[in-house]
Amino acid sequence: MADERFFRSCGPLRLNEIVSHVAGELSNAQAGEMMVHGVASLQTAKSGELSLFSDASYKNAFAETRASVVVTSRELSGLAEIHAALLIVGMPRVAYAQICNLFYPPDSLHTGTHCTAQVDTTAILGEECQIDAGVVIGPEARIGARCHLSSNVVIGTGVVLGDDCDIGPNSAITHALIGSRVRIASNVSLGSSGFGFTPGPQGPVRMPHFGRVIIQDDVEIGANCAIDRGAEGDTVLGAGSVLDNLIQIAHNVRLGRCCVIAGQAGIAGSTILGDYVMIGGQAAINDHLTIGTGARVAGKSGVMRDVAAGETVAGYPAVPVRQWHRQTISLMRAAARRTNGHV
Amino acid sequence: MADERFFRSCGPLRLNEIVSHVAGELSNAQAGEMMVHGVASLQTAKSGELSLFSDASYKNAFAETRASVVVTSRELSGLAEIHAALLIVGMPRVAYAQICNLFYPPDSLHTGTHCTAQVDTTAILGEECQIDAGVVIGPEARIGARCHLSSNVVIGTGVVLGDDCDIGPNSAITHALIGSRVRIASNVSLGSSGFGFTPGPQGPVRMPHFGRVIIQDDVEIGANCAIDRGAEGDTVLGAGSVLDNLIQIAHNVRLGRCCVIAGQAGIAGSTILGDYVMIGGQAAINDHLTIGTGARVAGKSGVMRDVAAGETVAGYPAVPVRQWHRQTISLMRAAARRTNGHV
Amino acid sequence: MADERFFRSCGPLRLNEIVSHVAGELSNAQAGEMMVHGVASLQTAKSGELSLFSDASYKNAFAETRASVVVTSRELSGLAEIHAALLIVGMPRVAYAQICNLFYPPDSLHTGTHCTAQVDTTAILGEECQIDAGVVIGPEARIGARCHLSSNVVIGTGVVLGDDCDIGPNSAITHALIGSRVRIASNVSLGSSGFGFTPGPQGPVRMPHFGRVIIQDDVEIGANCAIDRGAEGDTVLGAGSVLDNLIQIAHNVRLGRCCVIAGQAGIAGSTILGDYVMIGGQAAINDHLTIGTGARVAGKSGVMRDVAAGETVAGYPAVPVRQWHRQTISLMRAAARRTNGHV
Repeated sequence: MADERFFRSCGPLRLNEIVSHVAGELSNAQAGEMMVHGVASLQTAKSGELSLFSDASYKNAFAETRASVVVTSRELSGLAEIHAALLIVGMPRVAYAQICNLFYPPDSLHTGTHCTAQVDTTAILGEECQIDAGVVIGPEARIGARCHLSSNVVIGTGVVLGDDCDIGPNSAITHALIGSRVRIASNVSLGSSGFGFTPGPQGPVRMPHFGRVIIQDDVEIGANCAIDRGAEGDTVLGAGSVLDNLIQIAHNVRLGRCCVIAGQAGIAGSTILGDYVMIGGQAAINDHLTIGTGARVAGKSGVMRDVAAGETVAGYPAVPVRQWHRQTISLMRAAARRTNGHV
Repeated sequence: MADERFFRSCGPLRLNEIVSHVAGELSNAQAGEMMVHGVASLQTAKSGELSLFSDASYKNAFAETRASVVVTSRELSGLAEIHAALLIVGMPRVAYAQICNLFYPPDSLHTGTHCTAQVDTTAILGEECQIDAGVVIGPEARIGARCHLSSNVVIGTGVVLGDDCDIGPNSAITHALIGSRVRIASNVSLGSSGFGFTPGPQGPVRMPHFGRVIIQDDVEIGANCAIDRGAEGDTVLGAGSVLDNLIQIAHNVRLGRCCVIAGQAGIAGSTILGDYVMIGGQAAINDHLTIGTGARVAGKSGVMRDVAAGETVAGYPAVPVRQWHRQTISLMRAAARRTNGHV
Repeated sequence: MADERFFRSCGPLRLNEIVSHVAGELSNAQAGEMMVHGVASLQTAKSGELSLFSDASYKNAFAETRASVVVTSRELSGLAEIHAALLIVGMPRVAYAQICNLFYPPDSLHTGTHCTAQVDTTAILGEECQIDAGVVIGPEARIGARCHLSSNVVIGTGVVLGDDCDIGPNSAITHALIGSRVRIASNVSLGSSGFGFTPGPQGPVRMPHFGRVIIQDDVEIGANCAIDRGAEGDTVLGAGSVLDNLIQIAHNVRLGRCCVIAGQAGIAGSTILGDYVMIGGQAAINDHLTIGTGARVAGKSGVMRDVAAGETVAGYPAVPVRQWHRQTISLMRAAARRTNGHV
């Protein structure tokens, strides 16, 4: 159960209500009248709680769980005989996320602008926004309906936010056009000038960067990310893309739809990603590359050439992942031979 | 000597006072009446100053120092004959730290709440706190005694801080229970939602994360770190653990006591560290791993499997450090053979 | 053309005015009376606009551009016959940067101190500064003329800024002496205590760090960087050096003049760089090393030994770049032999 200081539960909820919310099917129709008190993992759930079984490797936890309801798929449901009611759905993890949101819906907004917030007289605020203490909104900015700007957020001149955006504390956003339902965590820098310098007679000379950042609908950006605006033209994060923490997106990078980028990864200037690209943690992608739709880059890889659609690469320099495994094995064997005195 | 604009010295101090503070022993009892004017390295110390000799490789600097007092161990003290008084202690570096704190004690608090700080009426502040300009403290938060919250710190609803905590400017803390004597530097994000997404019919679906961050006593967190709350259950930093800057700690990671993590390292979700684990800079640890007590991970390593207690690993994928050295040598030799026309 | 919401154009400008500003030479003197409406890339420029041709690999774009004016060098100008007027200069990229600045000069300051800014009565502000909402300036700080401190910037006790500095929103600066024309982006932490701990009887003991950060003239620091002060003595960024985003500079690191450091790189404690050193993205440099003037470190490298002046290194552990290429090829061949059944 979640700590009530941080998350207010809407439970208990009647199981039938949950079933209809996720369009699932109960293994035992009589269970529908049961009151469900909360959600928890298979290992920690108590009687009266609902849990998730979505990965066959947790079969034993499934068999032994004390949960009263388990969300799972038709295929997995047969892996053990258990006492719990089974809630059978097509995509168990998605259904579980929906059920968690039923129990712990996002905090409802405290509509209004805090007296210490500074909203420029030429800025436009949509309906029912929550603007917290210390927020600064610059001239000509346009904020959509039902946005939440947390404490000390800074919104620069001319920035546009769509509806239902949530911006975490101490983030700074400039030179950006942002869609709807975008979530940005805390201490994010969005719209800074990129790293563009050219050698001059007395050291590096800054190239002026007068592009923008375009964030499409349903994007999520983790804490302490830095996303630079375009030099000329735009840096673009495609709809539904999600970024973990401490990620660097350089000027003129373009992400397609629904890309997934793990923590501390970095993408250098002007590189273009297709849709559904997945980038592992601490990976780096060189500048001016093209990473095709559905490509995957393993964590800690260094990508120095284009990656074809659907390809999976790993290593530094990154190569197809099978080749990387072979390289790793070769290296281990060569080192083993050294120990045996063969080299 | 430190710049008086930033650090106010309590010196000069009588040497006997210093000796009794660190429970040491003077090589020359008559020196105890000497006034010590400050602390400096062996190379830069002037007459009247105190220095540290804790590493035999600095033997020459020890022999030539102009310092009037040198803190060292019995073993090292014999490496040169010098004119300075020797202050013999069991742990020279720890004693030196204590002496530095005598000369430059942490700034005493300016007790009170700045008129621009926003403290919710339901929040509770301990005695003698210093709450700086622009700080925001949310509902039901509880701040212990003698805490210092620097400018523009944001403390979310329900957050608990113990006594004697020091939070740097522009840090944001939510969904967290924090012990005593915890130091958090600037621009830290603590308690954000972790990176939990599952593929859905229209792109990634966010898994709700309704866990917490637990920071035990005496933890230190460097600038611009991002520490996510648990998905279900908690992210935990064990007592006495210290983190450098720009570190990523993902949801449900657990650190034991006194772990040491260097800059830009990242630990992926649900990985568990024992006590006294040391992680080098820019290292990455995969998710759902166990790193045993006293294990060490070299800088820039990528750890893809469990690490046993006391083991030292390096490389990517990380292997025992001796094996990594052999791999490195094999690779260098193979490259050299190529040059010589053997391949 | 830039988005007028974010960048106000001073155009159109007469070509002769541009020519005299960059001390260039027109291929066609009669063109000097032309009005130039803006700047754009060779591919996107329309009639009436000015573009840059500085890299022979863009020869085709040069041949086909619709731009009315192209800035280039004497050597490159002959690579195609085009209708546009050519503006011949010695350093085309530098000239283009100057021209961009003519069209889009940095925003002029809105002189004054916002009513919500907190400037200590003992701090000194130079003439014509712009101090935005929520800024906090501590006791005895000295800010030069024409500085811009963006919203929620925190300047600690005793900090000194030269003239014409620009500090981005939500950055925190303590224990620092900063030169003139320094630009610091958003969410930067500058002057935090470094990562100095020594094993003590009950876990790590913090070594007090009472040094400073010295930032010389014309330095630029990207978003979300963390730059620690010296332990004893100073951390120094030499004049004209430029840092990308999310970079870690540890205590007592010293950079010479005009160093260039790409995103997410990290430099460990007490390492010294000469002048004009270039460090690639995500590279790590160990502590206590010396990197000579003009040395280059490839992206993602891990440098574990000194690097000579002018040397280029790559890999982990970093080796001369040619050796790294040979290593990479050896590894690929060994992996290929495995596939062919030779190992």
